[in-house]
Amino acid sequence: MKLQLAIDLLDQVEAAKLAQEVEEYIDIVEIGTPIVINEGLSAVEHMSKSVNNTQVLADLKIMDAAGYEVSQAIKFGADIVTILGVAEDASIKSAIEEAHKHGKELLVDMIAVQNLEQRAAELDKMGADYIAVHTGYDLQAEGVSPLESLRTVKSVISNSKVAVAGGIKPDTIETVAAEKPDLIIVGGGIANADDPKAAAKKCREIVDAHA
Amino acid sequence: MKLQLAIDLLDQVEAAKLAQEVEEYIDIVEIGTPIVINEGLSAVEHMSKSVNNTQVLADLKIMDAAGYEVSQAIKFGADIVTILGVAEDASIKSAIEEAHKHGKELLVDMIAVQNLEQRAAELDKMGADYIAVHTGYDLQAEGVSPLESLRTVKSVISNSKVAVAGGIKPDTIETVAAEKPDLIIVGGGIANADDPKAAAKKCREIVDAHA
Repeated sequence: MKLQLAIDLLDQVEAAKLAQEVEEYIDIVEIGTPIVINEGLSAVEHMSKSVNNTQVLADLKIMDAAGYEVSQAIKFGADIVTILGVAEDASIKSAIEEAHKHGKELLVDMIAVQNLEQRAAELDKMGADYIAVHTGYDLQAEGVSPLESLRTVKSVISNSKVAVAGGIKPDTIETVAAEKPDLIIVGGGIANADDPKAAAKKCREIVDAHA
Repeated sequence: MKLQLAIDLLDQVEAAKLAQEVEEYIDIVEIGTPIVINEGLSAVEHMSKSVNNTQVLADLKIMDAAGYEVSQAIKFGADIVTILGVAEDASIKSAIEEAHKHGKELLVDMIAVQNLEQRAAELDKMGADYIAVHTGYDLQAEGVSPLESLRTVKSVISNSKVAVAGGIKPDTIETVAAEKPDLIIVGGGIANADDPKAAAKKCREIVDAHA
């Protein structure tokens, strides 16, 4: 089971510093969509030059021009790139093809997917590396949790890895880890903690205990 | 009927130069998603400082953290911001609220929306300023056109304006304009033309002839 730190609300310099501080406890560091929108792919490049053995995920949430966007993210140092599960099949397929051509991975973000079971099965067949159930900020505010969706996706896929994201914190990661996803994504639970290093260490220990 | 130039594949300096060259013929200039991903919102800022009476649209294709993303785009000079029609209602509503708070507009991009008629009616009720039928690059490659979708959306909305995008060129804009949308979006048809100014002029004349 892998642990990913998602960084959404810092600038690229602060994001890289945070990643270095907690690097020993995480497998993947994510440059979140808000940073990409604010600063562009230079934030991904800066992160990839700032970490050592940690993979870098570029949360582009691609919707169109998928092959081009994946190639750009990889050019700037991304190991994993995200596309939206609601995107057209043609976009998903060209994103997967482009990522694999470079030996990189594609994560499909299932945010706002309505027919979760059917779509996960389709994406699994298309060759998605990760399928991520994700309760976004705007639905977290309404009290929605991604746990039930995680079970649904796990039950229908056979090749893809399953990731889970959405408001997971050191205090709540235990119940998520108990479901044995392949990847748990923690954002503010580490990034906004008083002691990010201690929060990352706690998450790592719980993830490892369930691995 | 308004005319928008979408710029996707230039850097921010070249994009601003192109906008200045054709400014007399267009109402809105779009910083496309690929530029936002490559360079961030500084591209929107540079464009807004480079044009005079032309509105600037930031094609963020927002999917989450909608209020925050709209406020950021406006801070960097956007007059119109885009969100995806497939986003959750909570996201759409907070995006509309944030845009209107600043006297700006929201365009909902219907790319990959499956239940077009129902969703357009919902977005019209939520107060979307523009509803844009959009055949993306990845489906244009399969020969899909947005005209039928334009008729569908026009038939169900009563308050929103209707926009149309997807492979429209000086040679094909006539049939689109004949459908009388409120906004026609042309990208490569102007940006990649041998003479962008002549292409923009031709588009403007056809748009005005149908206004």
